[in-house]
Amino acid sequence: MTPAPKPPMRDTLVAAALQLFTEHGFEQTTVDDIVALAGVGRRSFFRYFPSKESVVFPDHEGCLRRMTEFLADPAGDAADPVDRVNDAARLVLRMYTGDPEFSVRRYELTRQVPALRAHELSVVRRYERTLANYLRARFAARADGRLRADVIAAAVVAAHNHALRTWLRSAASIDPEAEVDHALEYVTATWSDREDGEAADGTGPADDVVVMVARRGTPMWRVVQGVQGVLE
Amino acid sequence: MTPAPKPPMRDTLVAAALQLFTEHGFEQTTVDDIVALAGVGRRSFFRYFPSKESVVFPDHEGCLRRMTEFLADPAGDAADPVDRVNDAARLVLRMYTGDPEFSVRRYELTRQVPALRAHELSVVRRYERTLANYLRARFAARADGRLRADVIAAAVVAAHNHALRTWLRSAASIDPEAEVDHALEYVTATWSDREDGEAADGTGPADDVVVMVARRGTPMWRVVQGVQGVLE
Repeated sequence: MTPAPKPPMRDTLVAAALQLFTEHGFEQTTVDDIVALAGVGRRSFFRYFPSKESVVFPDHEGCLRRMTEFLADPAGDAADPVDRVNDAARLVLRMYTGDPEFSVRRYELTRQVPALRAHELSVVRRYERTLANYLRARFAARADGRLRADVIAAAVVAAHNHALRTWLRSAASIDPEAEVDHALEYVTATWSDREDGEAADGTGPADDVVVMVARRGTPMWRVVQGVQGVLE
Repeated sequence: MTPAPKPPMRDTLVAAALQLFTEHGFEQTTVDDIVALAGVGRRSFFRYFPSKESVVFPDHEGCLRRMTEFLADPAGDAADPVDRVNDAARLVLRMYTGDPEFSVRRYELTRQVPALRAHELSVVRRYERTLANYLRARFAARADGRLRADVIAAAVVAAHNHALRTWLRSAASIDPEAEVDHALEYVTATWSDREDGEAADGTGPADDVVVMVARRGTPMWRVVQGVQGVLE
């Protein structure tokens, strides 16, 4: 029988911290307690994590980096801006769903510890700023481009987090992708520039949609003229 | 000559804290430094403020209370839900504009001190939850009511804060009400249930709007039939 491979030191520290925070409370646990359980030195802890809070959220820095890279990729410049930030938000979902058990335990812990909630809020804000900065660039030529960017980024984050919380509260028992797709579809339906008739393969509009607006009392000849002019 | 009336102790503590934080830095200033400058005892500080962070935001608790009361008032039940949360957000604006000089100084300070930014984020989150809970109740009968509530609350907060930051960055030199009205109008235009033709006095629709949707290729007789059926 060969021994199980030793997990990387970073993972050992995260597991030790989560265990101690859950068993003894976040405030009652010191970094010294964590390194003692993990069997490493205090300096090792601070090589990986700037603070006691950050050990509970070990993957956010990597995820923020992936989100920034994803949005900087010129391949996305032709995509609908709202679709693009929705896809960027899905990177966060995938980080959570990559380790459902850890995510659910952390959610339970975070709900009980104000310091962890505050840390999480500051991370969420950084995701939101990353999405908003991308949209500001895409909307640079539009009236109120910065306002639109800030509002849509906040809506994407709120929709994503609504779905993520629903999944976490179900103890990871429902389909997270379906939950997030549904929530982000609400944002897309509100703001996407994508035309309804656009083909799924992105080859362009397959079937134009015409919207005719008239007030009650508009002469019929003018309505028919307007409709005919577009449909012919 | 009579001496100027002594300001309330709470105000004296706030002024002393902001002066010391600005001159010496937030981290370098202790609660003992603040009470020494204010000429009061340490216990007095903690009677008014739970932490060193909260002295910089002395009015948020009162504003959160006013927002909760405003939204609980049954007089608002007949109003459009989005209009109502926009008006609730305006209570926050008025707190900032009530003392422009203090608000601008705090903004400069908060930008530089991560602990204050984190505290501010947690307050903003409480405003957002207050608005979302109100909308959840108003949207209880709707499909996706909770999702809609969370997304619209986030959008209202983002629009309000966009305008508030614009005003603060102008060193309070532009019209804050106009800035916030413009930003919240974007949210209203996106989501309000209020009909376009509704009279301003709320007496009801003055002029119905009819929207006709047709795909290119729809037979003309069917389009005319549909339009006629509604307009007549």
